[in-house]
Amino acid sequence: MARIVQKFGGTSVADTDRIKSVAEKVRREVEAGHEVAVLLSAMAGVTNQLVAYVDEVSTLYDAREYDTVVSTGEQVTVGLLALVLQGMGIQSRSWLGWQVPIRTDNVHGKARIEAIETEELRRRMATGEVPVIAGFQGLAPDNRITTLGRGGTDTSAVALAAALDADRCDIYTDVDGVYTTDPRIVSQARKLDRVTYEEMLEMASLGAKVLQTRAVEMAMKHGQRVQVLSSFEDVPGTLVVDEDEIVEQELVSGIAYSRDEAKITLVRVRDKPGVAAAIFGPLADANINVDMIVQNVSGDGEATDLTFTVANNDVERAVENLAARKDEIGCAEILHDPRVVKVSVIGVGMRSHAGVAQTMFKTLAEKGINIQVISTSEIKVSVLIDEEYTELAVRALHTAYGLDGD
Amino acid sequence: MARIVQKFGGTSVADTDRIKSVAEKVRREVEAGHEVAVLLSAMAGVTNQLVAYVDEVSTLYDAREYDTVVSTGEQVTVGLLALVLQGMGIQSRSWLGWQVPIRTDNVHGKARIEAIETEELRRRMATGEVPVIAGFQGLAPDNRITTLGRGGTDTSAVALAAALDADRCDIYTDVDGVYTTDPRIVSQARKLDRVTYEEMLEMASLGAKVLQTRAVEMAMKHGQRVQVLSSFEDVPGTLVVDEDEIVEQELVSGIAYSRDEAKITLVRVRDKPGVAAAIFGPLADANINVDMIVQNVSGDGEATDLTFTVANNDVERAVENLAARKDEIGCAEILHDPRVVKVSVIGVGMRSHAGVAQTMFKTLAEKGINIQVISTSEIKVSVLIDEEYTELAVRALHTAYGLDGD
Repeated sequence: MARIVQKFGGTSVADTDRIKSVAEKVRREVEAGHEVAVLLSAMAGVTNQLVAYVDEVSTLYDAREYDTVVSTGEQVTVGLLALVLQGMGIQSRSWLGWQVPIRTDNVHGKARIEAIETEELRRRMATGEVPVIAGFQGLAPDNRITTLGRGGTDTSAVALAAALDADRCDIYTDVDGVYTTDPRIVSQARKLDRVTYEEMLEMASLGAKVLQTRAVEMAMKHGQRVQVLSSFEDVPGTLVVDEDEIVEQELVSGIAYSRDEAKITLVRVRDKPGVAAAIFGPLADANINVDMIVQNVSGDGEATDLTFTVANNDVERAVENLAARKDEIGCAEILHDPRVVKVSVIGVGMRSHAGVAQTMFKTLAEKGINIQVISTSEIKVSVLIDEEYTELAVRALHTAYGLDGD
Repeated sequence: MARIVQKFGGTSVADTDRIKSVAEKVRREVEAGHEVAVLLSAMAGVTNQLVAYVDEVSTLYDAREYDTVVSTGEQVTVGLLALVLQGMGIQSRSWLGWQVPIRTDNVHGKARIEAIETEELRRRMATGEVPVIAGFQGLAPDNRITTLGRGGTDTSAVALAAALDADRCDIYTDVDGVYTTDPRIVSQARKLDRVTYEEMLEMASLGAKVLQTRAVEMAMKHGQRVQVLSSFEDVPGTLVVDEDEIVEQELVSGIAYSRDEAKITLVRVRDKPGVAAAIFGPLADANINVDMIVQNVSGDGEATDLTFTVANNDVERAVENLAARKDEIGCAEILHDPRVVKVSVIGVGMRSHAGVAQTMFKTLAEKGINIQVISTSEIKVSVLIDEEYTELAVRALHTAYGLDGD
């Protein structure tokens, strides 16, 4: 017997027929003798409609009222699923964030979970009852409803699983697991049986939109085993686990890419102490996140070209911000280019193996792909290349690291 | 300065534009220097959609889950109105039933309000803040959401007004007040400036669907002044008040009618002690409400015809119930006829004046209308007539009692 938290997203509960299918998945675990708690999103589209209402009535909105309005979608789905389960003869009841309670801080609109009281839930689960809990919401110290921000339901699920000491947190979604790369680009992409938290974090933040970054961070912090699997197909998913649970670690687990990158180049920046702080400090103050940075070697010792990347939707603000300070920075020109892609090779195995980066550079060179910027971490190597070469690069690297399936 | 509770129904908050119009009505009272609390329904149609979801997933539904689901509509509108008011520079916040709290019993789906904690609301209203409170919902002793049943928002509003010692409870709706009779039938119908609780109760339960019966009962119990007025037209409404507040009481205040009646006749019932109990006891047990009853004088002293009315949608169940016990009752035949209408003359003035019933009978006789059943109370006389004569009867009585306007 295991204790399992099952989380279903918006497309999995999009209408009452889908909710009935969800109930079947719950029943299977109950009939296998497991203790089960379920966590739900709102019906797909409902939260967007609620957000649209808020936008229609108010530009300067009070996040406490926003939370009151947008948290209603989950309240509907949890009540409906509890009813379907009852109809199947399974004891069940719905729980809203304030009823559990799921205590959060008071940052309405993007609250963080601080504690989940599980005594009553545990007592009821031990009798075979299935609690159906509203995701994405909690209770602030002021006794008002909070929401965790978009995608917060994954985070709710992992936090609940950790608080319940669950053996597994199953995240049902519209993909059936985590792949070695995007199957739309590489037909030989393989589904991974297991992946480590660290790898998953790199993949999520690099554009493999399977699981929210916050949820993975929380799972890693608590050592919570998470499984990503499909709501629609009945096949095993991918387990996201601690490194220790993976006996034979592959050198590289996957190839990720992100088109949400834009390159900015400052031409002939004066090469003097403090210039980097003068450039990047104000960008950070403007809440513009800078990712990869490369500074060319200064030929004459007086000036250098500085290249870095920001998210696509920040590029205009960033260029305006820099242009306003052009004289202060002392550069000749500010160039920007949104037609770039970041390709990354990820794997915890590379910690103990040299040569991973070298294989990447050699593979790309053989295909005639120019590397514009490089950045590395303990478990990944990322390069910025021309967007046109995305598919070519991803396919070549997938083959080069031996990831191709049948 | 007065303290006012304003209640707006589903058509008044049907979309975000309507909610903005509601905010204007709130602003006007605030700017007049009044302390204001607002109570809202869900957007028109939303509660029906939520009920439909519940019906789709479960036939034997748990009323606690039903309440969880259907109470979300009000949660949306209160958040939105609070945002609009804030945008106008008026301090405001939303309150859900469990936040106030509005304490109810645990009869989910049709709970009764037991207590409303108003200390915090009063404190905030004294500073100019406008609480926007979700109607139709409360908190049961088990810490779960209850709903008050359809139309419960009027009841919430009156209960809140009474708890706040409000000077007035304004019920904004899609009609602009209470009329002497249905203006669709009688073009000379006049809007009443004032009407007593007792008269309003008779009118509401007789089919003048302006204000829920439960809400009127609660207003009468607490002596709460209520005003019924239009959300859409800017004209004075009708005050529902204690009899003492009406200086010159008209003999008759209005003519009501109800088509929701069906007549059942038991032919040649044995005329012996206990027969009425044998007939009506099981109907009451089956939750079938019997209204008017008339028993013909028995000619031979052995058998009598018994006629009574039930609501139209109960008539089939009632006839089945009686047919199953036909031998026990000992009647020759069971007849039923849905093509009847109950017409009532209402007025607290008739307590102290004789002749009101006589005027009614004479007026109907002059028009050749046959009276099938008669029932009377202290402040009304009702007759059952053939449905075909509805308009003719109502118009003739309206004129006979001097109610016609210009």
